[in-house]
Amino acid sequence: MKLNKGQKLLFIGDSITDCERVKPAGEGKFGALGNGYVSFVDGLLQAVYPELGIRVVNKGISGNTVRNLKDRWQEDVLDQKPDWLSIMIGINDVWRQYDTPFIKDWHVGLDEYQESLRKLVNETKPFVNGMVLMTPYYLESNEHDAMRRTMDQYGAVVKRIAEETGCLFIDTQAAFNQVLKELYPATLAWDRVHPSTAGHMVIARAFLREIGFDWDKV
Amino acid sequence: MKLNKGQKLLFIGDSITDCERVKPAGEGKFGALGNGYVSFVDGLLQAVYPELGIRVVNKGISGNTVRNLKDRWQEDVLDQKPDWLSIMIGINDVWRQYDTPFIKDWHVGLDEYQESLRKLVNETKPFVNGMVLMTPYYLESNEHDAMRRTMDQYGAVVKRIAEETGCLFIDTQAAFNQVLKELYPATLAWDRVHPSTAGHMVIARAFLREIGFDWDKV
Amino acid sequence: MKLNKGQKLLFIGDSITDCERVKPAGEGKFGALGNGYVSFVDGLLQAVYPELGIRVVNKGISGNTVRNLKDRWQEDVLDQKPDWLSIMIGINDVWRQYDTPFIKDWHVGLDEYQESLRKLVNETKPFVNGMVLMTPYYLESNEHDAMRRTMDQYGAVVKRIAEETGCLFIDTQAAFNQVLKELYPATLAWDRVHPSTAGHMVIARAFLREIGFDWDKV
Amino acid sequence: MKLNKGQKLLFIGDSITDCERVKPAGEGKFGALGNGYVSFVDGLLQAVYPELGIRVVNKGISGNTVRNLKDRWQEDVLDQKPDWLSIMIGINDVWRQYDTPFIKDWHVGLDEYQESLRKLVNETKPFVNGMVLMTPYYLESNEHDAMRRTMDQYGAVVKRIAEETGCLFIDTQAAFNQVLKELYPATLAWDRVHPSTAGHMVIARAFLREIGFDWDKV
Amino acid sequence: MKLNKGQKLLFIGDSITDCERVKPAGEGKFGALGNGYVSFVDGLLQAVYPELGIRVVNKGISGNTVRNLKDRWQEDVLDQKPDWLSIMIGINDVWRQYDTPFIKDWHVGLDEYQESLRKLVNETKPFVNGMVLMTPYYLESNEHDAMRRTMDQYGAVVKRIAEETGCLFIDTQAAFNQVLKELYPATLAWDRVHPSTAGHMVIARAFLREIGFDWDKV
Amino acid sequence: MKLNKGQKLLFIGDSITDCERVKPAGEGKFGALGNGYVSFVDGLLQAVYPELGIRVVNKGISGNTVRNLKDRWQEDVLDQKPDWLSIMIGINDVWRQYDTPFIKDWHVGLDEYQESLRKLVNETKPFVNGMVLMTPYYLESNEHDAMRRTMDQYGAVVKRIAEETGCLFIDTQAAFNQVLKELYPATLAWDRVHPSTAGHMVIARAFLREIGFDWDKV
Amino acid sequence: MKLNKGQKLLFIGDSITDCERVKPAGEGKFGALGNGYVSFVDGLLQAVYPELGIRVVNKGISGNTVRNLKDRWQEDVLDQKPDWLSIMIGINDVWRQYDTPFIKDWHVGLDEYQESLRKLVNETKPFVNGMVLMTPYYLESNEHDAMRRTMDQYGAVVKRIAEETGCLFIDTQAAFNQVLKELYPATLAWDRVHPSTAGHMVIARAFLREIGFDWDKV
Amino acid sequence: MKLNKGQKLLFIGDSITDCERVKPAGEGKFGALGNGYVSFVDGLLQAVYPELGIRVVNKGISGNTVRNLKDRWQEDVLDQKPDWLSIMIGINDVWRQYDTPFIKDWHVGLDEYQESLRKLVNETKPFVNGMVLMTPYYLESNEHDAMRRTMDQYGAVVKRIAEETGCLFIDTQAAFNQVLKELYPATLAWDRVHPSTAGHMVIARAFLREIGFDWDKV
Repeated sequence: MKLNKGQKLLFIGDSITDCERVKPAGEGKFGALGNGYVSFVDGLLQAVYPELGIRVVNKGISGNTVRNLKDRWQEDVLDQKPDWLSIMIGINDVWRQYDTPFIKDWHVGLDEYQESLRKLVNETKPFVNGMVLMTPYYLESNEHDAMRRTMDQYGAVVKRIAEETGCLFIDTQAAFNQVLKELYPATLAWDRVHPSTAGHMVIARAFLREIGFDWDKV
Repeated sequence: MKLNKGQKLLFIGDSITDCERVKPAGEGKFGALGNGYVSFVDGLLQAVYPELGIRVVNKGISGNTVRNLKDRWQEDVLDQKPDWLSIMIGINDVWRQYDTPFIKDWHVGLDEYQESLRKLVNETKPFVNGMVLMTPYYLESNEHDAMRRTMDQYGAVVKRIAEETGCLFIDTQAAFNQVLKELYPATLAWDRVHPSTAGHMVIARAFLREIGFDWDKV
Repeated sequence: MKLNKGQKLLFIGDSITDCERVKPAGEGKFGALGNGYVSFVDGLLQAVYPELGIRVVNKGISGNTVRNLKDRWQEDVLDQKPDWLSIMIGINDVWRQYDTPFIKDWHVGLDEYQESLRKLVNETKPFVNGMVLMTPYYLESNEHDAMRRTMDQYGAVVKRIAEETGCLFIDTQAAFNQVLKELYPATLAWDRVHPSTAGHMVIARAFLREIGFDWDKV
Repeated sequence: MKLNKGQKLLFIGDSITDCERVKPAGEGKFGALGNGYVSFVDGLLQAVYPELGIRVVNKGISGNTVRNLKDRWQEDVLDQKPDWLSIMIGINDVWRQYDTPFIKDWHVGLDEYQESLRKLVNETKPFVNGMVLMTPYYLESNEHDAMRRTMDQYGAVVKRIAEETGCLFIDTQAAFNQVLKELYPATLAWDRVHPSTAGHMVIARAFLREIGFDWDKV
Repeated sequence: MKLNKGQKLLFIGDSITDCERVKPAGEGKFGALGNGYVSFVDGLLQAVYPELGIRVVNKGISGNTVRNLKDRWQEDVLDQKPDWLSIMIGINDVWRQYDTPFIKDWHVGLDEYQESLRKLVNETKPFVNGMVLMTPYYLESNEHDAMRRTMDQYGAVVKRIAEETGCLFIDTQAAFNQVLKELYPATLAWDRVHPSTAGHMVIARAFLREIGFDWDKV
Repeated sequence: MKLNKGQKLLFIGDSITDCERVKPAGEGKFGALGNGYVSFVDGLLQAVYPELGIRVVNKGISGNTVRNLKDRWQEDVLDQKPDWLSIMIGINDVWRQYDTPFIKDWHVGLDEYQESLRKLVNETKPFVNGMVLMTPYYLESNEHDAMRRTMDQYGAVVKRIAEETGCLFIDTQAAFNQVLKELYPATLAWDRVHPSTAGHMVIARAFLREIGFDWDKV
Repeated sequence: MKLNKGQKLLFIGDSITDCERVKPAGEGKFGALGNGYVSFVDGLLQAVYPELGIRVVNKGISGNTVRNLKDRWQEDVLDQKPDWLSIMIGINDVWRQYDTPFIKDWHVGLDEYQESLRKLVNETKPFVNGMVLMTPYYLESNEHDAMRRTMDQYGAVVKRIAEETGCLFIDTQAAFNQVLKELYPATLAWDRVHPSTAGHMVIARAFLREIGFDWDKV
Repeated sequence: MKLNKGQKLLFIGDSITDCERVKPAGEGKFGALGNGYVSFVDGLLQAVYPELGIRVVNKGISGNTVRNLKDRWQEDVLDQKPDWLSIMIGINDVWRQYDTPFIKDWHVGLDEYQESLRKLVNETKPFVNGMVLMTPYYLESNEHDAMRRTMDQYGAVVKRIAEETGCLFIDTQAAFNQVLKELYPATLAWDRVHPSTAGHMVIARAFLREIGFDWDKV
C-alpha cells in the first residue's frame, strides 16, 4: 500500500470524477464525495484500511476540460495541499469535437491538451508525495471509431507525461477494454461516457490496484 | 466463484438492502439497484466477471421486519425464481424494541423471528441453487450495550439456521467489528444502522469473499 | 400528395414517436403531439397544406416494443379509426438485448418481432386507406457494430412486411446514414437513439417525401 | 444555398425567436436553441446540409422591443462575430400599444422603431457576410384590424430598411397570410402572436427558401 | 333586488365561471369561489347586502361545453337545490371549431347546442325561483370575424331560450361591445376569451344590474 | 368623476394594498395589480370608464408600517410621478403592539405615526392632482376592544391630516362597521385584518364612491 | 399521577389536536404526534415519567366537528383499545356558524352537539380506564362577543357531560382566560383559534395538572 | 423567578438551539423560535408568566462550534443587548472528532474550546443581567464510550467556567442521564444528538428549573 497513515488524497477531473459531489468542499459526510469512482475508492480504503485514516477529497467538476482545470488549479489543487493527487481529464476535450463539432471554441486540441496537462503536472509534482495520472476513455470497442481513435491519442499523451514525470499511470481505456470484450458499450454507459456503477467499479479497481490496495487484507 | 453463468441472484431485506432501489422491479438501468451493498456487489461482479452475466435483483424494502418478508415472500421471492437468494433481515425487528419501546405491536421478538426466518428458508431452499444468510448488525462496539446484545442474539439465530440448512453464512457484525476497532461508529453510520459508502463496502466485500469472488482475476 | 382532405393520420411507436406527447389523447393544442418528428410532420403539413386539414394523432409510448403495441392495438389504433397509419417500432426490441443483456425477459427476438408486426399490419390493412412502415434505426455508422447489425436485421423485416403487404416503406436507417457520412453519431443523439431536432427532421423529411409532400408548393 | 461551410448564423429577436433557448449561451446540445423557428432552421440545415457545418446561435429574449436590442447589441451581436445575422423584432413594440395602452412608457413608436433598427443594421452590415431582416407579424386576417394595421406599418419599415441596405428580406406576415386564408388565427396561435409548431414552420420555411435551401437535395 | 334573504345562487359554466374555484364543493372560505365574475358577484352582494345572506355556489369547470353540462347536471345543479341558477355556456362549443378545426368530435354545433340548452333549462325551471341565462361572448369587435359571427349565433340561441322560458337574460357580448369601443381586445383578454379583472367586472356588473343590485344602497 | 383622462393613480400601503401584486413594477397584465381592492378599483374603472384610460399602479408591500413608507417614498411614490395618490397605512403600526407586544422595536406609536404620515402628505401634495387618505381598520365590532380602540385613534389621525391638507378622506372602518352590523368579523377576515373578496369590495366601493364613480353610467 | 405503567393514551379532536400529525397511524418517531399540545403532553410525560412508558396516540383531524367524530369513532377510537381517552371537540361546530354563516349544512347546533358527544362518551366509557373531556375554547376575552358566548354554551355542555359520566374535566377556556388577562388574543393566535406554542402549552399544562403530573418529580 | 418584567432572553448555540428558527431575526410569530427547547421555554414562560412579557430571541445556527460563535458574537450577541444570555455549545466541537475523524481542520480541541468559551463569557458578563451556561451532551448511557467521555470533558469545562464567572450552570448531560436510566438512547434521538420533543422537554425543564420557574403558579 503506497498511501501512508493520515494522508490526504485529492481527485480532480470532470463529470466522471464529480458525480454530484458536494460543492465547494468536496469532502464530509452524507455522500459528499458523490456516487462515482472517488466514493468507491474512499469506501474501500476506509473499509479495508480504516487504520490509515486516508482523507479523500473530490474536486471534480462536470463538463471540465484541461482548460478549466488550469483556471482553478491554484484554488482547488495547490491550496488544498494534498499528499496525493489523482488527475483524470480529457474526455470533454475530445467529446466536444464530436458532439458539437461546429462550435470550435469548445474544442481543446491535442497540443493544447498536452501542453496544459504537462505544465500542471510539472508545477505540482514538487509539492505532493505521489501523483496518479489516469487516461480519459471512451466506451467504444471499435478501435477505428473516430472518437475512440482521438481519445486514444489523448490517452497516449497522458501516458507520455506520466513517464516523463514519474507519476503513477492508470490506463482506464485498457481496463474498460477488458470488460468490453464481454459486454456491449450500452450495458456500461448510456452515452458511452458516463458509466454505470459497474463502470465506476472498473475505474476504482484500476486505481486501487495501482496504489497497492490488498482486497484480501485481514 | 460459486455463481455460474447466467444465474439470477436476488437480494431481499430491509432499508440496508433497499437503498432507494427502483420499485417494484428492482432491476434495470440507471441505479435501479439502489446505492447500497447490492449495487456494489452487482457492480463488482459485472466489472470483474462480465462473462458470467449475473442478473442481480434487489427486493429490499425499507422498514421491513421478518414479518413483512413473510407477507411478500411468494411474490417477491418465489415467483421471481432466483438461482441464488441472499437474505439480510432483523435490524428493524430489534430496533423497534429500542427506538419505540412503548409500541409493542411493532416489535418482533426472538422466537417469532427465528420461527419465521427458519420457515422461509426451509420452504425456499429446494427451489434455489444457493442461499446466503447474512446476520443483522448494529454499529456499536460495546458488546454490553443493550441493543447490541439483542442484535447479537438475532445474529446467532441466523447462524444457527444457516448451519441447520446448509446455507452460506455471512457474519456482517463480525465484518463491521473489524472496522470498529479503528473507527468510532459515528464515522460509519449517522444512526448506527444506515451505513456510509464505506459501510456498504464492508457488507459487499463480506458477501463477495463468501461466494468466491477473486479481486485479482484478470 | 397522397393524403386527402380531412383524413386522420395516426402515428404509433416508442419514445422516438412519443416525445412527451399529451396522454392519453395524443392530439390537441399546446404541444399535444410532443416535440419530435410527429409534431414536425404535423407542423409542415399544416403550414404548407392548410387546406387539407389533416388530423394528426400521436400514440407513441416511450419504452414500447412490438409486444406492447400488441397489448394496446385495439384501443390505440383500431378504435381510433385512422385513415392513415404510420408505425415505427423495434428500437427497444433490439436495445434491451444490448443495454440489459442479462434480463432476457425484456428482449424481443427477431422471430417474435416479425410475427407480431406482420400480424398487426395484416389485421389493420383492411381498415385504413394507407399505411406507412418505418424501420427502426441505430445512429452508428459502423455497419459491423453488433447492435447496428441486429438493428439492420429488424429493419429488413420491416422492409419485407411492407413489400408483402403493399405498405409505404421508409428506411430511416438509410436516411440517417446519409447524414452520418458527415456527422459523428454523438452530434445527432446523446445515446445513439434519441435524436436531436436535426435527427427528428431527418425522420420527418423522409416521411414527408414518401407521402408526396411538396416543399415548394405555393 | 447562400450559406457557406463553417459559417456562424445568429438570430436575434423577441419571444418568437427565444422560445426557451438556453441562456446566456444560446447554442449547444439538448434544446439549447429553444423550440421555435430557430431550432427548426438549425435542424433542417443540419439534416439536409450536414457537410456545411453551419453554427446556429439564438439570442432571442422574450418581451424584447428594438429598444432592448439596442441595449444588448454590442454583447449579443457584435461581440459574437456572426457571419450571418437574422433580425426579427417589432411585435412587442406594437403589442404594448394594444394590450397595455395606458402604460405609454412601454410603447415604441414607429419613428423610434425605424430609427433604431436602421442604426443597428447600418452599423452591423460591414461586419457580416449576410443579413436577413424579417418583418414582425400579427396573426389576424382582417387587414383593417387596428393592431394588424399598425403591425403592417412596422413591417413596411423593415422592408424599406432591407431595400436601403441590401439585406435579404422576409415578409413573415405575407407567409402567414397564405395560411390564414385556410385557417382561423386561433388554430395557429392562442394569442395571435405566439405560434404553434405549424406557425414556427411557416417562419422557418420562409427563412430557408430565402437563403436558397433545397429540400430535395440528396 | 330580486334575490331574497337566505337564498342559494348557483353558477354553472366553463372556465370563465370556474376561475380556479375549489373543487368539488364550489363554496366556502379562502377563494373557494375562484377569482372571476362569480367571486365578484358574491363579494359585492355580501358587501352591499350582508343582511340577505345570499349563499353563492360556483360549479363552473374549465373547458366545458353544453355537452359536459348535460353529463353533470343532475349532480351539480339539480341535487344542489339552488333557489337561483345562472348559466353561461357556449364559448368552448364555438371555440373548438376555430382552434382545433380538424378534430370534429370536439365541436358542438348550433343545433345540438340549442337542443341541449333548451332541455336543461326546461327541466330545471320548475325547481328554482329564478334563472339567469348569459350569452357566450367573443372579445372581437369586428362583427364580420368568422368566430365572432358564430358566437353571435349561439348568443341568439340563448336569447331565444330565455324569451321562450321567461328566464332573465344577460347579453354579455353587448356588455363587452360597449367597452370594446374604447379598448382593443388584447387589453381585456390575452386570447380574446379569458378576461382580465376588468373583463370579469363587466360580466359581474351586467349580472348585478339585471338582478336589481343597487350600488348606492346604504 | 374626479379622475381625468390619462391620469396615473398610485396606491401605496401594506398587505391590504399589496395582495400579491407583481414586484417591483406594480403594473402590467396578468394580475400585476394583485387580487385585492386595488385590482377591483382598476377593474371597475376600466370596465365602466374605459375611455378615461386611467393607469393604476400598486406599490403596496406586505407588513409595511408608515416607517417603511418613509424609507421608500422617494422611489416608490415621488419618482413615479402619479397624478393621484392613495395611501392606506397604519394597520401594522397598531397590530404589532398587539400580536408581538414584547418586541417593542416593531411598534410604531401614535406620535411617530402622525408625524411621519403628515410629513409624507405635505411633501407630496404639491406634486399631485389629488390625494386620497384611507384609514386603517380592524374588523372587530366591539368598540371597546383594545386593539379596535387603538386603531380608531390612528384612524382619527388620518382624518385630521386629511382635513388639514385638503385630501379626500375615506373612513374604511366606518364602511366595514356597516357590514359588521350584519356579519360576524370571522366571515370577512380570518384574522380580523386580511379581508375576503367581500371585504376588499367594501374598500373598493368606498374608494370609488369618494372619487365620483358612477356605477350606472352607460 | 393517574396514568399507570404501559397504558395507552389516545387523543381525538380537530385541528388543535391534529397539528400535522402523521396519518393514519398517529404515533411513532419523527414528529408523528404533530406539533401541538398532544406532542407536548407526550414529551413531558416521557421526559419526567420515562419509567411509565405511556404510549400516546393522536387521532385529531383538522376541520372535524362532533359529526365527523361519530363517523370515525369505531375505527379511530374503539378499535384502538386505548386505556385513556381525551376528547376536545366543538370549535368547528361553533366556528362555521360565524365564518360561513350562509352555509347552514356545515353548522352543528347545540342540541346535536350535546346528543352526539354524550352518546360517544357513554358508549366508550365502559371500555377505558379513564376519560378526559376538554372544552372547546375561543381566544376572545370579551365574554359578550357573540362567538365567545356560543362557545361558552358548548363548553357548558362538555362540563355537564363530564359531570354526568364521571369523566375528568378540563376547562381550556378558563385556562386561556387566565392568560388573556395579560395578553391580547392576537398574541396567542392569529385567528383566535389556532394557538401559538404558548397557547398549546396552556392546554398541555391544563391537561397534565388534571392527571396528576408532577413537574418537580425527580 | 429570576427573570424580571420586560427582559430580553437570548439563546445562542448549535442545531439543538436552532431547530429551524427564522433567520436572521430569530424572533417573531409563527414558529420564529424554531421547534426545540428555546420555543418550549418561551411557550411555557408566556403561558405561565404572561405578565412578565419576556422577549425570547433564538440565535442558534446548525453545525456551529465555539469557533463559529466567536465569529458572530458581536453581531448575534453583543449588538442584541440581551438582559439574559444562555449558551449551549460544544457538541459539534466533539462530534466532528468522531464522525469525520480524518478531517482534522474541523475539530475543535479541548484547549481551544475552553479558551474561546471563557473569553466569550468574560467579555459579555459585564453587559448582561444574567448568564446561563449549559453543557453539551451526548445521549449515550455508557460512560466509557469514547465520545461520551470526551463530551464529559467539554461539559466539565463549561462547569468550571460557570463557577469562575458566577454564571448559572445547567448540566444537560445529568438531566438526560436521569432519563437514560429508563430509556435506550435511540428512543430519545435518532443519532444520539438531535433529540425528540421529549428530549427538548428535558432541556427546557432543566433550564426553567434553574431560573426559578414555578409550574404550579396560578
